[in-house]
Amino acid sequence: MASIFTRIVNGEIPCYKIAEDENYLAFLDVSPLAKGHTLVIPKKETDYIFDIPSAEHQGLWSFAQTVAKAISKAVPCRRVGVAVIGLEVPHAHIHLIPMNKVSDMNFASPKLAFSKGEMEEVAGSIKAAL
Amino acid sequence: MASIFTRIVNGEIPCYKIAEDENYLAFLDVSPLAKGHTLVIPKKETDYIFDIPSAEHQGLWSFAQTVAKAISKAVPCRRVGVAVIGLEVPHAHIHLIPMNKVSDMNFASPKLAFSKGEMEEVAGSIKAAL
Repeated sequence: MASIFTRIVNGEIPCYKIAEDENYLAFLDVSPLAKGHTLVIPKKETDYIFDIPSAEHQGLWSFAQTVAKAISKAVPCRRVGVAVIGLEVPHAHIHLIPMNKVSDMNFASPKLAFSKGEMEEVAGSIKAAL
Repeated sequence: MASIFTRIVNGEIPCYKIAEDENYLAFLDVSPLAKGHTLVIPKKETDYIFDIPSAEHQGLWSFAQTVAKAISKAVPCRRVGVAVIGLEVPHAHIHLIPMNKVSDMNFASPKLAFSKGEMEEVAGSIKAAL
């Protein structure tokens, strides 16, 4: 069965899109640890990030760098933190998380919820900063 | 002042080395979240990972991929997780953390301590799997 992220890639499930090219997609995490928390994925479904062939793996991180720079400009934060856990959705994804302190990256923390309007606004701000 | 990681690169501070090339270095974290927790750094000191020029940034992740595959082989775990926080040591570094559950990546957890013999043993196992 296609992963939830493949279904997003295929447009079967909507997302707050940040950036897209032929191979990669970035969109807001709908269960974020911070406003602006973004997921970056390869469009081609691979479960484990380190199983992605080297050139595509490097391309994924290059794409993530571009998105992270835009997040840094659009969202007030000291750093955009990076996490890849890979134990939940079986489709490799990079978390880009606006951070002000180390504890801002704790996946055991309660997830935040923002209105559709707030999500659209932050997505728009990040896209404008690309 | 040189970062603690630059002092490791320069051999002024010892480390449990995993891998090294002209531009990058991997060594065991001495305050690990799990046995085999490894740090991957660019030898050239840059504070924020996303400020590293694109080609070097991609090279860093390529180097990390090689190291992560060796950790996967050498250390029993479901995944090698990735984290970059960047709020402590002002020298970009990727955490590669052997993980079995999501909560294995929680930087608020008490850090583990292993004997010199245990650190040498796990470093040796990872190196042998490279």
